[in-house]
Amino acid sequence: MPASTALLSRADLDFLLHDWLRVGELTDRPRFAEHSRSTFDAILDACADLAQDRFAPHNRRNDTDEPRLVEGRVHLHPEVRPALDALAEMGLLSATADHHVGGLQLPHVVHLACAAWFAAANVSTYGYAMLTVANAQLICALGSTEQVTRFVTPMFEGRFHGTMCLSEPQAGSSLADTMTRAHLADDGTYRITGTKMWISGGDHDLGENIVHLVLARTGADDSGVRGLSLFIVPKFLVEDDGSIGERNDVSLVGLNHKMGFRGTVNTVLSFGDGTHRPSGSAGAVGYLIGAPGEGLAQMFHMMNAVRLEVGACAAALGYTAYLKSLAYARTRPQGRRPDAKAAHLPQVPLVEHADIRRMLLAQKSYAEGALGLTLYCARLLDERDTAVEPAERDRAALLLDVLTPIAKSWPSQWCLHGTSLAIQVHGGYGYTRDYDVEQHYRDSRLNPIHEGTHGIQAIDLLGRKTSMLDGAGLEALDEEMRRTVATASQLGPELSAHAADLDLVRARLTEVTKLLHSHPEPITRLANASIYLEAAGHVVVAWIWLEQLVALGDRDDAFARGKRSAARYFRTYELPRVTPQLDLLASLDRTTVDLNPAWL
Amino acid sequence: MPASTALLSRADLDFLLHDWLRVGELTDRPRFAEHSRSTFDAILDACADLAQDRFAPHNRRNDTDEPRLVEGRVHLHPEVRPALDALAEMGLLSATADHHVGGLQLPHVVHLACAAWFAAANVSTYGYAMLTVANAQLICALGSTEQVTRFVTPMFEGRFHGTMCLSEPQAGSSLADTMTRAHLADDGTYRITGTKMWISGGDHDLGENIVHLVLARTGADDSGVRGLSLFIVPKFLVEDDGSIGERNDVSLVGLNHKMGFRGTVNTVLSFGDGTHRPSGSAGAVGYLIGAPGEGLAQMFHMMNAVRLEVGACAAALGYTAYLKSLAYARTRPQGRRPDAKAAHLPQVPLVEHADIRRMLLAQKSYAEGALGLTLYCARLLDERDTAVEPAERDRAALLLDVLTPIAKSWPSQWCLHGTSLAIQVHGGYGYTRDYDVEQHYRDSRLNPIHEGTHGIQAIDLLGRKTSMLDGAGLEALDEEMRRTVATASQLGPELSAHAADLDLVRARLTEVTKLLHSHPEPITRLANASIYLEAAGHVVVAWIWLEQLVALGDRDDAFARGKRSAARYFRTYELPRVTPQLDLLASLDRTTVDLNPAWL
Repeated sequence: MPASTALLSRADLDFLLHDWLRVGELTDRPRFAEHSRSTFDAILDACADLAQDRFAPHNRRNDTDEPRLVEGRVHLHPEVRPALDALAEMGLLSATADHHVGGLQLPHVVHLACAAWFAAANVSTYGYAMLTVANAQLICALGSTEQVTRFVTPMFEGRFHGTMCLSEPQAGSSLADTMTRAHLADDGTYRITGTKMWISGGDHDLGENIVHLVLARTGADDSGVRGLSLFIVPKFLVEDDGSIGERNDVSLVGLNHKMGFRGTVNTVLSFGDGTHRPSGSAGAVGYLIGAPGEGLAQMFHMMNAVRLEVGACAAALGYTAYLKSLAYARTRPQGRRPDAKAAHLPQVPLVEHADIRRMLLAQKSYAEGALGLTLYCARLLDERDTAVEPAERDRAALLLDVLTPIAKSWPSQWCLHGTSLAIQVHGGYGYTRDYDVEQHYRDSRLNPIHEGTHGIQAIDLLGRKTSMLDGAGLEALDEEMRRTVATASQLGPELSAHAADLDLVRARLTEVTKLLHSHPEPITRLANASIYLEAAGHVVVAWIWLEQLVALGDRDDAFARGKRSAARYFRTYELPRVTPQLDLLASLDRTTVDLNPAWL
Repeated sequence: MPASTALLSRADLDFLLHDWLRVGELTDRPRFAEHSRSTFDAILDACADLAQDRFAPHNRRNDTDEPRLVEGRVHLHPEVRPALDALAEMGLLSATADHHVGGLQLPHVVHLACAAWFAAANVSTYGYAMLTVANAQLICALGSTEQVTRFVTPMFEGRFHGTMCLSEPQAGSSLADTMTRAHLADDGTYRITGTKMWISGGDHDLGENIVHLVLARTGADDSGVRGLSLFIVPKFLVEDDGSIGERNDVSLVGLNHKMGFRGTVNTVLSFGDGTHRPSGSAGAVGYLIGAPGEGLAQMFHMMNAVRLEVGACAAALGYTAYLKSLAYARTRPQGRRPDAKAAHLPQVPLVEHADIRRMLLAQKSYAEGALGLTLYCARLLDERDTAVEPAERDRAALLLDVLTPIAKSWPSQWCLHGTSLAIQVHGGYGYTRDYDVEQHYRDSRLNPIHEGTHGIQAIDLLGRKTSMLDGAGLEALDEEMRRTVATASQLGPELSAHAADLDLVRARLTEVTKLLHSHPEPITRLANASIYLEAAGHVVVAWIWLEQLVALGDRDDAFARGKRSAARYFRTYELPRVTPQLDLLASLDRTTVDLNPAWL
């Protein structure tokens, strides 16, 4: 399958899934009993082929021929729908769902590996599937049986698609300021009015219906996030027999035109402005999920899954950009080595230059570190849901809580940097639209923004995830790292060195975290939350790399040597960034706090 | 002039030029005797107005309506020509040139400040002027009187435009592999044949003629860079009376379509392929500049000036993106402070959040540090050319040699990062094409690539500039830094702290440089040249910031407090990056050297 290897490395996925994360062991559990290594392999093979054959070919055209608004309706590039239909046909939209709703009961960790193939091939087209799956999973988990039948089943079949509607024009990151309102109608449904912004997939021509999950206020105006509830608001009402009914009062206000990620249409939607009022309704018809006032918590059920997927998509973009720049560096002759510069000698391939190798190793360390981290988290999802002992489930949930902001942000930051290095390896060619890497770079720039910005993740990690339950999440993570360090310290000089370097910053991170949490002023405590997020991210990824080194065992082929080189790069070039960051945090620096904005 | 302050800060330029670099003192020298602070101010005012009125309005359209190839000729956006004509009308194309060739004899440092305004407004349109000026300056310095009259005068008048033709499809960074050939014809002119790649401004509809400066081989095929000579190859031959003659055999092969910087057309040119053969010529007619075999050294005359301008353009893009994100952060309400989160309180402007302030201070420290560095270098150009004592001229030349790769690379790297932070401050809006910052980000991504990539600058600095003349360049720079440290150490706690931190890394940089230069193997010595460039860059910019702090004196207004905050940010958040980089260099790490590419 040489064509597919251009998108991702199947050898690496096999290593990560099987040699490291021992995904095969999951098949001992009842939920996954119908699966085996060979069904996992077959699904990955099929995804790789589909990604290569139906997703990759129109990736560039998704960018050049972006979604158009024609007479109030969004038209996507014509190659998007067949690709998504093929994906639905394979059952991938319900891959992780229960058998009883038509799902495949695939482990999350295998599903995330599948997702990475599609994201590497065409992240914009895959975006529609990702949103639909996340939406359907939320309704499955929190909605009524009737809601599942009415909305989820057609989503799993690829006939309906899903969105998440949180942000508003006046409230991007600040959900407490949500102004969209929901009023209870006589029939027990709700009427939704308000404007939602940054809605990916808010309108398109892909299927029969679009299922919006809308966060709206049922409580008083000043009730903050406690007054928010979550609603299903379909574009078309759905009759009891499942047929498409009247148009609901959801209208498309306009499109946002982005720098990248252009194939995933981004919209402004108006709910209940009377444009498409269904009979007898003032406002868009919405169906409450669960109980009123639980909207934010419910939304986070979806949000956490999506944040992990954003991390995986970021990793996939960084990975495919790495492989493309590697292929270029191997074949493009340019210049000579410093010890053999004579002009009569032939030029050497770019990959012979130390600086090019540095950029390739950096990319590899980011991409394989990021993919490893996100797969590890997906494996935790499976532990949380299916581990035999309840204590193991709780522990997995705890680790997931603390790792999710890192799994979202770290790949978003560093794999973006990786795509920039991929451009640099290509030289001037990389800056042209004749090569893929410039699009990967532009697409990647969205990742630190959407689904909670870098700064929001930072506050989530430092202000919430590391302090909740008396710091139990961070303690669990610290324990995992110590365990790996202890194992690796017995495994020869390279692993011992990595373990020792990791152990120093691990201990320091714990110490600094305690110092910050003990500070009385929230402003000072959180002032450098982003630096904290970045330091913690590098520590965690150094640990993920040590885990991979341990999993390599005695293997000594080219693959293992490449892994060791990338791990060594990460330890010697990247990990040392952490100490000055922790020093800054420990100093409780107030530069930003004391600044008067009038001075800028 | 409030409209202009949106592009750059005139208050900062006045501070940098006058309070710090004491540009007024230049007017004591014969070359600048006709100038005064008020002529400098008037020229800056005029440039600011012109940039705002004629350059900024079509910046976005340069991007959306990029140059088109119609029937073999390039058509630029129609607003480009009037903007450049107005610039020529003001005499700015010959701003720094001698009076006897029609120049204004403006100091380089003032001219670079003017350039920054145009780059902030519209870097793509300004690109044509920059190339023309650099080309004309080279012919003025190295060409014959007759070449100056024939080609430079019309360039200064804005009737002809200039290019530099170095790269070829098979040789981007590797000029030793130049294949374009020049043969001496019977009439003493040359015939040029070959293909040149990445030629900015290689064809367009701006004026009457295009003057290509072409690097071509007169020596044997394997003569490397020693066999290269430099030629004037006009698109149209120019008659003795200055009128436009026959078409020369330079033909446009195609355009490169870039991610950004789109308004500056980038071309592939073919010389001497017979498409436009002038009577009796086989090959494009070229005129040798100076003597054969001096091409590379001559090209560097132009290249060094252009590298400094690239640094200044990078700084200008970072600066204007900073000001735009600052304006946004001041007006956009979003969320609440961590110590006053109640939902009934109004939202606060973004600038109230510590993380937003961190991103703004980072941008400010990059932009004002980069602009300061490039203006300092331009001031050195003036010293090199006009200092009273020959020893001072030599010293300025020495400092310029060692600072040029940093002045090109540091702004290119960090102001690109600044534009990324400008996007982040805008949140989702910054990722849309409705705001300017995404274009500034895409435009900026070219800077670490063109006119010598980051890696090429790194080898220039570590392999050449810091070792030449027994390290005299670095020693001179070190002396300057020590002098500033000594002064600043007497000026209170904040300056002393900055001086002490700078002094530590300064001494360490010198020590590590000596260690590297003493290493016998060039491959190991140069393996981490890029890390060296980045470490040296942060040390130098920390010094530039200390220089600015000293220049502030007792001033204690909002401007001075803003400068101090940015300097403090740079010292506490940025400068600590250097120590791990120097540690890595001192370890003579061989990760990249020992890598077998087959492992990747």
